[in-house]
Amino acid sequence: MKKINIEKKILSENEKCAIENTFFFTEQKKLCLNMISSPGSGKTTILVETITALKDKIKIGIIEGDVQTDIDAERIRATEAPVVQINTEGACHLSAVQISRALKELPVDDLDLIIIENVGNLVCPSAFELGEAGKIVVLSVAEGDDKPAKYPAIFAKSKVLLINKIDLLGHVDFDIERAKDDARRLNKNIRIFPISAKTGEGMSQWYDWLVQNVEQEKMRQ
Amino acid sequence: MKKINIEKKILSENEKCAIENTFFFTEQKKLCLNMISSPGSGKTTILVETITALKDKIKIGIIEGDVQTDIDAERIRATEAPVVQINTEGACHLSAVQISRALKELPVDDLDLIIIENVGNLVCPSAFELGEAGKIVVLSVAEGDDKPAKYPAIFAKSKVLLINKIDLLGHVDFDIERAKDDARRLNKNIRIFPISAKTGEGMSQWYDWLVQNVEQEKMRQ
Repeated sequence: MKKINIEKKILSENEKCAIENTFFFTEQKKLCLNMISSPGSGKTTILVETITALKDKIKIGIIEGDVQTDIDAERIRATEAPVVQINTEGACHLSAVQISRALKELPVDDLDLIIIENVGNLVCPSAFELGEAGKIVVLSVAEGDDKPAKYPAIFAKSKVLLINKIDLLGHVDFDIERAKDDARRLNKNIRIFPISAKTGEGMSQWYDWLVQNVEQEKMRQ
Repeated sequence: MKKINIEKKILSENEKCAIENTFFFTEQKKLCLNMISSPGSGKTTILVETITALKDKIKIGIIEGDVQTDIDAERIRATEAPVVQINTEGACHLSAVQISRALKELPVDDLDLIIIENVGNLVCPSAFELGEAGKIVVLSVAEGDDKPAKYPAIFAKSKVLLINKIDLLGHVDFDIERAKDDARRLNKNIRIFPISAKTGEGMSQWYDWLVQNVEQEKMRQ
């Protein structure tokens, strides 16, 4: 029982800061998305391709969360998009206060969209709101079609599921309909885009969704 | 500061129970290994193949950790090996007390080797000792060769690194020498076996290591 109480307290402090972040994004009319996946599902490659493809349409800033290293931030930096690195030094998820601090280092006024690349972890980040408008969960087909059933929380809470690395579908056992069905059973409104960030297949539907949602955020009264 | 103190306290309680588990394994002369990886790196397939290949040499029991479902335990059960399922109901790692309870449900006297399949998570399980003699980290080549650098804790602490899904090496960008070098920089004694649990390539070296370590545990004074 004691353990549950401690967890509740930490979550509540995080939630308070997350609400402040949400106020900030709403006031600034900036869309913020929180991208979550296992290590190695391809989040950074998706972001690099997305920034490059949309550079004439929307300006994207990135908050890059990693346990260690700035390998991913360097890859983002090569696109010339603004990026802030957060190293959690072992912690398994980003917190709202880290996002609040990172926002002070981003040129928010110049941006249309802020994407947070969370620490590679399919479990913990789903429990910590950062103030984002929506979560994007990425699942690589190499991870297996049973992941929505086995890690339901993040699939239940996400606006979008990107099923990445579909160029590998001929080489791995992955039933895409099973993954889609299980994700929709957890979350009937989830948008699902099968993509390959490597070959570009399916990416245009994801880009359209992003541009449309950025526009909706700007038009909101 | 308060947060650090709370974390310390929880870890210490876990460590106390982990030491009790270690005493138990030592007394019983049973080897216990703790297998850790990202979701979808192939832990369960490795275990199914290992149990089947070694069934005439060593008797293996499995403690199966999952956030939800008994999908993996069912796959293990099909091999007829004894298996105990632990569902963490959202928690991101197994704890030593869960292992202590699970051991009461396993026919330990009949076993040579107990393998704990931890929750799919490359971050949190590395911080929680369960009383095992060693950790086995699994990295799928589909996850990328930068994972030892980006998630150093588990590579620094593991006895063995299984680089799995090498049948995909022609289809993904993965420099196996970079992954090996980075892992050895963190841990000069780590044993590295490149394997494909799907095709069987490289598995015999892993089996030899297991059999040898089980024998050493039995011979120990």
